[in-house]
Amino acid sequence: MTGGGFTSRHLAVVGLGLMGGSLALALRSHAQHITGVDPDAESRRIAVERGIVDEATEDLRSGVHDADCVLICAPVRTIISLIRGRIGSYLRANTLLIDIGSTKEDICDAMGTLPIGVGAIGGHPMTGKESSGLLSSDGSIYRARPFVLCPTRRTTPATRLRARALVEALDAVPIEMNAHQHDRVVAAISHLPYLLSTALVATVAQEGQNDDSVWKLAAGGFRDMSRLAAQDLSMMGDILSTNTQAVATLLALFRMQLAMIEARLLSQDDGALVDMLRPARDARLNWSQQYDGKRTTP
Amino acid sequence: MTGGGFTSRHLAVVGLGLMGGSLALALRSHAQHITGVDPDAESRRIAVERGIVDEATEDLRSGVHDADCVLICAPVRTIISLIRGRIGSYLRANTLLIDIGSTKEDICDAMGTLPIGVGAIGGHPMTGKESSGLLSSDGSIYRARPFVLCPTRRTTPATRLRARALVEALDAVPIEMNAHQHDRVVAAISHLPYLLSTALVATVAQEGQNDDSVWKLAAGGFRDMSRLAAQDLSMMGDILSTNTQAVATLLALFRMQLAMIEARLLSQDDGALVDMLRPARDARLNWSQQYDGKRTTP
Repeated sequence: MTGGGFTSRHLAVVGLGLMGGSLALALRSHAQHITGVDPDAESRRIAVERGIVDEATEDLRSGVHDADCVLICAPVRTIISLIRGRIGSYLRANTLLIDIGSTKEDICDAMGTLPIGVGAIGGHPMTGKESSGLLSSDGSIYRARPFVLCPTRRTTPATRLRARALVEALDAVPIEMNAHQHDRVVAAISHLPYLLSTALVATVAQEGQNDDSVWKLAAGGFRDMSRLAAQDLSMMGDILSTNTQAVATLLALFRMQLAMIEARLLSQDDGALVDMLRPARDARLNWSQQYDGKRTTP
Repeated sequence: MTGGGFTSRHLAVVGLGLMGGSLALALRSHAQHITGVDPDAESRRIAVERGIVDEATEDLRSGVHDADCVLICAPVRTIISLIRGRIGSYLRANTLLIDIGSTKEDICDAMGTLPIGVGAIGGHPMTGKESSGLLSSDGSIYRARPFVLCPTRRTTPATRLRARALVEALDAVPIEMNAHQHDRVVAAISHLPYLLSTALVATVAQEGQNDDSVWKLAAGGFRDMSRLAAQDLSMMGDILSTNTQAVATLLALFRMQLAMIEARLLSQDDGALVDMLRPARDARLNWSQQYDGKRTTP
């Protein structure tokens, strides 16, 4: 099923940030030549100087036209406009095209409009780092992490096999699912948590206008629950606005759960309240043991 | 203002769990004699064997009658029933009585009914440990952490001074506020976050019934946001049910914040959405730098 080890005669990495740099480093020994494409001269200079890529250009056409594998490593809306732009006409037949965007349905739809002959598949490596940018690049961030692959209308059996081989070359765990399902899952485990974190901080900040002791006394629980609110906004804006429907659905489901807990709280029946809280506690403990404990904490 | 170093001729610690054990350890060199009171024989045996206390008894009267300082270290409802029970009649005049309950208004109201002559003040050390129980006791967990003191009708100026001295003996930071204010603050920074964490896990678990890939793909963001949901339920039931009004108020304020964010999301105006998210991001970053960064992470 894995299609053998991944190799590339010429790998192009479009977008030299944390993800692009990290993918280039991780695939260094699998590619004969790596070209980086980025509009920012400083990023190109650093990428070449540090040996992350062999050469770098700001010109998309010259960067990708000879490649047999192209990785698009940019924010979601940039990925979509690249795919809906001219990149399709620059690519050789049978080139493998993968992106790393955090939402997949809009991107995979766009991939479906690429010329026949391009082997395009959506990708989402479920990993990251506190620090962003090319200088934080680290080829090991994919290790033992899920890497979702979402087939498109331009995904052939060969595309699928080669993409899986690429993911395995990263020591990541390939998980195939359709783009719609992916977006619903990440709405639940990533976008909803982000919005809750942000709304929590906004609530505490509102309290803080009357009483700054909220800030003085906030500690570990608040620290955990507010960390996501500090995420980079330019990326989050793209992510949320390309997943509005799934996020709105999850918000509605969340409100139902919160309302049920609140009803028990207000009814002043301690036993019933604890009975309502217990399944979530069990589910969290079960997740820690069954899923989270099995992989390396990034 | 600090009233000099804290000393006790005879310190009684009622409740030998993580908090009771840790307080006894932290005050070891400040007390000539420490008696532990606990209904559990095993806890008493361990506390004496490890030198956490000098002696231990299950009898509340004999444990506290000679003490000049009594610390009640139990879940909130247990603290309230101890105070509303006979402990007042067992105490010597001028004994300092402090509790460590996570909500303060009900406890401080109860303290107000104690016999005149008992110097009672509510306490809440804002600290903890992942692991609970006497065996996890650690005298250093109070260091540089806020320790809230809430005056009651039985708090004299001498009570206040001695309580502050005790808090400083723990290397903790005394913060005085009234019990009502305390309960509102912890509703915002602790109880609301807990309920959000629980409702989030319940939502993800509901999704998981149809698609177990939510569990496979959940990672760092979900880990942070779900950690509180795994807290000990017996304590949380007590805490929430003694702070219902403040928690319900904060839930209502939170819903408003979340609804405002959702409205921007649904309006498909990316710029407006990001403008709505930005103040929370700034507030979180500011809290990290101005407050959280200044103390040791427990």
